[in-house]
Amino acid sequence: MTTSLVAVVTDQVRDGRTVIGYGFNSNGRYGQGGLIRERFAPRLLQAVPDSLLDEHGLLDPHRAWAALMQNEKPGGHGERSVAVGTIDMALWDARAKLEGKPLFRLLAERHGRQADPRVFVYAAGGYYHPGKDLGALRSEMRGYLDRGYTVVKMKIGGAPLDEDRARIEAVLAEIGSARLAVDANGRFDLEAAIAYARMLRDYPLFWYEEAGDPLDYALQAALAEFYPGPMATGRTCSATRTRATCCATAACGRTAIGCSSTAPCPTGWSSICARWTCSRRPAGRPRAASRMAGTRCR
Amino acid sequence: MTTSLVAVVTDQVRDGRTVIGYGFNSNGRYGQGGLIRERFAPRLLQAVPDSLLDEHGLLDPHRAWAALMQNEKPGGHGERSVAVGTIDMALWDARAKLEGKPLFRLLAERHGRQADPRVFVYAAGGYYHPGKDLGALRSEMRGYLDRGYTVVKMKIGGAPLDEDRARIEAVLAEIGSARLAVDANGRFDLEAAIAYARMLRDYPLFWYEEAGDPLDYALQAALAEFYPGPMATGRTCSATRTRATCCATAACGRTAIGCSSTAPCPTGWSSICARWTCSRRPAGRPRAASRMAGTRCR
Repeated sequence: MTTSLVAVVTDQVRDGRTVIGYGFNSNGRYGQGGLIRERFAPRLLQAVPDSLLDEHGLLDPHRAWAALMQNEKPGGHGERSVAVGTIDMALWDARAKLEGKPLFRLLAERHGRQADPRVFVYAAGGYYHPGKDLGALRSEMRGYLDRGYTVVKMKIGGAPLDEDRARIEAVLAEIGSARLAVDANGRFDLEAAIAYARMLRDYPLFWYEEAGDPLDYALQAALAEFYPGPMATGRTCSATRTRATCCATAACGRTAIGCSSTAPCPTGWSSICARWTCSRRPAGRPRAASRMAGTRCR
Repeated sequence: MTTSLVAVVTDQVRDGRTVIGYGFNSNGRYGQGGLIRERFAPRLLQAVPDSLLDEHGLLDPHRAWAALMQNEKPGGHGERSVAVGTIDMALWDARAKLEGKPLFRLLAERHGRQADPRVFVYAAGGYYHPGKDLGALRSEMRGYLDRGYTVVKMKIGGAPLDEDRARIEAVLAEIGSARLAVDANGRFDLEAAIAYARMLRDYPLFWYEEAGDPLDYALQAALAEFYPGPMATGRTCSATRTRATCCATAACGRTAIGCSSTAPCPTGWSSICARWTCSRRPAGRPRAASRMAGTRCR
């Protein structure tokens, strides 16, 4: 596995130091360096400098995004969005540093929201490993709690359903009042997704994530008929329009179209608060899903 | 723009020469070198050699594909599929050379089809350029005909609808009995796609390509109500399951889920003939779409 690091070096100085924004990606969709170096960064470097500034004369991540994406076709989910998202992360970091404030405050101010310095995070683990028994799984989850996490996530779908049921019960028994989410990483077809929904709804799970292919909106919509709790999907949806489509189709009321806190948001930081809002999110969305969307993407 | 070239160097010799398969990509989704070098090629190089061979002891592109894609998540359309597709192209080239026959014959034999050495190709042009008037557009298209093409394609959606209508009429007047296809490159929302459909159906077009976002299956399905001729989309759909979803949703009877002849097929050569077939393609699909699918993807 490799890591992609982006440093956006500005010609601005704050407190005697050159302002540099940083972006990072690794894990999963790694190896973005070629796309960044050969396709996207050159567009930014070749842009007329003034075209990247806003009315305050400061680097504008939205205009930079437009430069990065010029002549790109629709589609290209997953890899392109990570490559561009890593640069976008650095651009927003630079902008926040130019304004001398943390990015979360800058974003909140831009959108008229009250910044909350407390952020909900969860520990994503519970992977399958040869020889990893229920005791090891419990021990892993206990380790997360010991480090202060109050929400943990585990993988499902890599073992027979009854075995996964036993894994879930073991973890729930271990974590007490902490919350558990499960993630199928898009493994299931509709039939398997429903079979799991029937099993999962017996437990007080925090959410049921990426049951099927993230672009199989119809599956997600149908699944809502079988699973009454919060669901999540769409970390790999990149295009705003695709997200809107996903949202419109996929039972938006109970599906959070999320993005990761550990990697560049596929739609970019700019999208997190500014570009994408689900026009069909009903007020009655369960609190858990709202919290998740609230902390993971919006 | 950069170019990605992959050479799969085998330890086999045919006619005194080491067998090497080549794959190529450029144009559009370029800059795949990082993904190839850092993420995908190492999996192939680290695989147990025998695990990549079939029962004849020859390099098996299907097994190699499985090695390339191990631990990859669903989604990742566009970039990942081009990176893997470029390697896949080289693998199939190597396999064909190992068997001492052209790839098209190898694929036809594998699937019990009669190989046809004649291939339908078309000239994809008709781009917008500042100052490019109807005369220049006609001249461009005439140039394709002079080079032997009997089908040409032009872009639409980059100008107002009436201007595009005039462009189409100009080209049709120029090309006589040759055929014209149009490509919107996914620019349209449903309303614009329908408005164009109403205009386009006045003309004997070969096909109407990628009206909306390639993943907006609902748009494609709805569009079929307004456009009676053949349509195409999905060059950027990579996952087999996504293609199936697209196919099931998007009026498969009249939409060819295509792949490009000028770049790696997003699903890989192996998929072209082996993995993906549209289970819902009715017998009544218009001949033009069948021909296109037959020559571009199947």
